[in-house]
Amino acid sequence: MAAPTSESQHAVAVVSGGMDSVTLAFLLHAEGWRLTIVSFDYGQRHRRELRCAQSAAGRLGAGHHVIDLTAVGTLLGGSALTDGSVTVPEGHYTDVSMRATVVPNRNAILLAVATGVAVAEGASAVAFGAHAGDHPIYPDCRPAFVEAFAAMAQVANEGFLMPGFQVLAPFIGKTKADIVWLGVQLGVPYAETWSCYVGGEAHCGRCGTCTERREAFMLANVPDPTAYLV
Amino acid sequence: MAAPTSESQHAVAVVSGGMDSVTLAFLLHAEGWRLTIVSFDYGQRHRRELRCAQSAAGRLGAGHHVIDLTAVGTLLGGSALTDGSVTVPEGHYTDVSMRATVVPNRNAILLAVATGVAVAEGASAVAFGAHAGDHPIYPDCRPAFVEAFAAMAQVANEGFLMPGFQVLAPFIGKTKADIVWLGVQLGVPYAETWSCYVGGEAHCGRCGTCTERREAFMLANVPDPTAYLV
Repeated sequence: MAAPTSESQHAVAVVSGGMDSVTLAFLLHAEGWRLTIVSFDYGQRHRRELRCAQSAAGRLGAGHHVIDLTAVGTLLGGSALTDGSVTVPEGHYTDVSMRATVVPNRNAILLAVATGVAVAEGASAVAFGAHAGDHPIYPDCRPAFVEAFAAMAQVANEGFLMPGFQVLAPFIGKTKADIVWLGVQLGVPYAETWSCYVGGEAHCGRCGTCTERREAFMLANVPDPTAYLV
Repeated sequence: MAAPTSESQHAVAVVSGGMDSVTLAFLLHAEGWRLTIVSFDYGQRHRRELRCAQSAAGRLGAGHHVIDLTAVGTLLGGSALTDGSVTVPEGHYTDVSMRATVVPNRNAILLAVATGVAVAEGASAVAFGAHAGDHPIYPDCRPAFVEAFAAMAQVANEGFLMPGFQVLAPFIGKTKADIVWLGVQLGVPYAETWSCYVGGEAHCGRCGTCTERREAFMLANVPDPTAYLV
């Protein structure tokens, strides 16, 4: 990732409120980017994460837009994330059953909207928090997707994009443990991030993201501030 | 454009209710595609077009989703299409002033959602009605955009897309006059299509799309059923 070359450079970051995307926001801020944070309400059960995104924006003095995409979420149902009739799978994230958490074309949709915001606000980058552990499950978290999306965005907005426009995915080669280790150095308040897909009052401790969250703190050898139910 | 190879092939078409996209739906139907029509409410002043999309879906026996993207439209304001404080430019569409009608990254956003619907419904194509006359104004109406979007969609949804997935833009090399000439052969009820960007009770006859609409019927040498105000 190229750091900004002048004070005025401005990035639009997709921040769900989970630990990866909140760390992304703290990293960009530390690198000197002026930030606009966009979060999406797509009818996810774990809408509590949106409050965590808001809290990160507040701490970083970033502009924050929560964008209502519930109509899209409803239509792209059948996923455990948006459809109350589907059980959220338990266990480790690489299990085949976790495919139920795929929202079709999610990152392309979210980054397409973020790119529109970047054009409207004159920002020269969009950023998202995909990491290496996402690759086996989500095809739109791979480096090839970032490249293809950036190429598409250039063509789609020729003459309207800021020069040197970039799609930033600084964690795409990193593990979740790498991210949490970096985040601790950056002072990320992980108690104000949300992972659990089940959407209860506390982290369930059983679903795929809870399993990975717990493991990331353990592998990074840093304290986990999360109160899990089990 | 490749016509469907079996009865069961299914396309998701982005249909605004304007003459190009309604003709697109009639063309795909005539070619034997099973159709799902998606229309977007992005806060456009000319929301009346959505009723025209619904009417086309009814005539073709197609599924129809009107997807609420008003939150996105609000954020991408500054365009004459969504921002009531901006005057809709008059005169011919190739004028520089028509750049005010650009909604940043519009086609990428709409096609990204349509692709999500295609994955969710097992459709093997998405389609939109961009035509050659759009190219000077809208970078996301060019053949290069269609190619870049298709490449991105493949990567973003690998393992989830129907085999042979295509992005169809059959009018990309055609003029609006070509489209209306074809549409008349297909029996498109043009009185049930809407072009005017101003959003009054009748077509204003002055804005860019009214100017082009009128010209298309004239150049195609077919009767124009539209009641213009002037």
